[in-house]
Amino acid sequence: MKWFVTKIVEGQMLREKRVGKAFASSNIALCKYWGKRDASLNLPINSSLSVSLGSLGTQTKISVSEKAVDEVWLNGVLQKVDSDFAKRVSNFLDPFRPHVGNVFFTVHTENNIPTAAGLASSASGFAALVLALHDWAGWTLTRRDLSMLARLGSGSASRSIFNGFVQWNAGTREDGMDSFAEPLPVEWNDFRVGVLEISDQEKRVGSRDGMARTVKTSALYKVWPNQAQEDLTTIRTAIETRDFNQLGKTAERNALTMHATMMASSPPLLYFLPETIKQIHHVHQLRKEGLELYLTIDAGPNLKLLFQKKDQQMVKEQFPTLQIIAPFSSVLITSNH
Amino acid sequence: MKWFVTKIVEGQMLREKRVGKAFASSNIALCKYWGKRDASLNLPINSSLSVSLGSLGTQTKISVSEKAVDEVWLNGVLQKVDSDFAKRVSNFLDPFRPHVGNVFFTVHTENNIPTAAGLASSASGFAALVLALHDWAGWTLTRRDLSMLARLGSGSASRSIFNGFVQWNAGTREDGMDSFAEPLPVEWNDFRVGVLEISDQEKRVGSRDGMARTVKTSALYKVWPNQAQEDLTTIRTAIETRDFNQLGKTAERNALTMHATMMASSPPLLYFLPETIKQIHHVHQLRKEGLELYLTIDAGPNLKLLFQKKDQQMVKEQFPTLQIIAPFSSVLITSNH
Repeated sequence: MKWFVTKIVEGQMLREKRVGKAFASSNIALCKYWGKRDASLNLPINSSLSVSLGSLGTQTKISVSEKAVDEVWLNGVLQKVDSDFAKRVSNFLDPFRPHVGNVFFTVHTENNIPTAAGLASSASGFAALVLALHDWAGWTLTRRDLSMLARLGSGSASRSIFNGFVQWNAGTREDGMDSFAEPLPVEWNDFRVGVLEISDQEKRVGSRDGMARTVKTSALYKVWPNQAQEDLTTIRTAIETRDFNQLGKTAERNALTMHATMMASSPPLLYFLPETIKQIHHVHQLRKEGLELYLTIDAGPNLKLLFQKKDQQMVKEQFPTLQIIAPFSSVLITSNH
Repeated sequence: MKWFVTKIVEGQMLREKRVGKAFASSNIALCKYWGKRDASLNLPINSSLSVSLGSLGTQTKISVSEKAVDEVWLNGVLQKVDSDFAKRVSNFLDPFRPHVGNVFFTVHTENNIPTAAGLASSASGFAALVLALHDWAGWTLTRRDLSMLARLGSGSASRSIFNGFVQWNAGTREDGMDSFAEPLPVEWNDFRVGVLEISDQEKRVGSRDGMARTVKTSALYKVWPNQAQEDLTTIRTAIETRDFNQLGKTAERNALTMHATMMASSPPLLYFLPETIKQIHHVHQLRKEGLELYLTIDAGPNLKLLFQKKDQQMVKEQFPTLQIIAPFSSVLITSNH
């Protein structure tokens, strides 16, 4: 990781500000990332495609600390030096220190993602951290380079450097220099995402371990890389032609195929909870009745619903606790938190 | 189907009795059958392996009817001629009629499988029907031939012609003459099966349609035939060496891989109910705590548990409504029905 950071930032002129600031949106993958080809560089086996969540995400401020240790604040609370959160931030900053005068930092992170909404905060978190550091240092890196740096913190963070529909190319190079995200030049104002919280419990098996177990033990993983590639192409075309049903159908099948692939691992990986199944059947029943409603599920129990503005009222009636997001108008439409 | 029946029964001497009688045990697959290579002959894509359920099954009596229509009784109740059950029995008997004097039959079927226990009654049902017809006709077919005839009614019925551990060979011939079941010469007295009823609702999508949809639309089905073959070999070896944990682990993964493969279909096939997931997590938690307990699930929401006699008391405490079967002592140990 150290040499990778050096390769990208060397030659950059340091013109540090007193405080660097940045905001990054959270994102939800319509074609999922599952499986690493290189664990230390966070290089994925398959390309993925997401939609960002507008104003939902992470705001980060970074400045030089007076102390001989990083000070990491999360939503106004100072995190203990040996907490998982503070360690992850410090470890991420380590390879940058030789390039910025070997200083320690004060990092303030604010997530406006409603707590426990089932949205990964590591994606927007590492993206905002990289962008804030870049702002503080006064560097002039490209968004592509910033995407690769964010990737080192969390694979999906590579996508949170951009807004709207974003594709993260898996790349094929061993040094990871071709594994970055790119935005799709598309605005789709009527596109809606709903977040249905089912549990705020921590995952039983984290994504990193879950991916490794799936790649190593699931017979079904053989199919995943090619299927994901095919789904990505279908989803891209559906986005370009505004074919909502094709997009929804493919995104849902992609997510269920990912969960299926996990479930066939040894020991089995089952992220679903009873309520997850209940809500999947609910979505399928509504679709049978004619509603254009699809679902996607990340490595956890919560559902994300995909629909269009025209069906928003109906969807809200069926799922009263749903948090609805309009990704292209940067507005959180409803929240019960 | 007609030519197939003719091919098997032609040349048999008809020496009919007044009443033919037979009993066939139900069975639970440890390596599942999913996907047909020929729908009319019920030829499977993969071989499967089951354990029979001793005294749990179907008792059938057959005799010539005085009427110009079959009379089909189920558990003491005369079934309407146009009911699904009566039609399925009559359709099954049709290709046999030319060989037995073109008569109509009175069929009495008694299932002692506790109602709605989630055990397929078609397996023991068609096996008992074939055996009763064979008894009535006074034929001298081999068990192998009877297995192939039962297969025409329901694939898994081919296995219910035998007791204990039974393997149904997929075969490769187009005429289906090598697709029959065979018993494994093994007794395992301490082997236990538990049936955990979760719902007695009829399946949303029947096995026949579900198989067709999976084979046609699930990208993951590519893996299934080879994986099932590998699982079958592993399970056979585990049975021969009495390696319970290897058997349980492989049977569970086989079942979850089948459900995973279904789930990736379009539209998705999800036989799980919320309670199914709750009980899967329950089994996994107990196993983490050291209990040698595994699960299998057919195309429906109900769980079947696999364990050994030594753990019976513990399992019963954890699942008070469980119906426990000792396949090799032909006894239903507990039932709350």
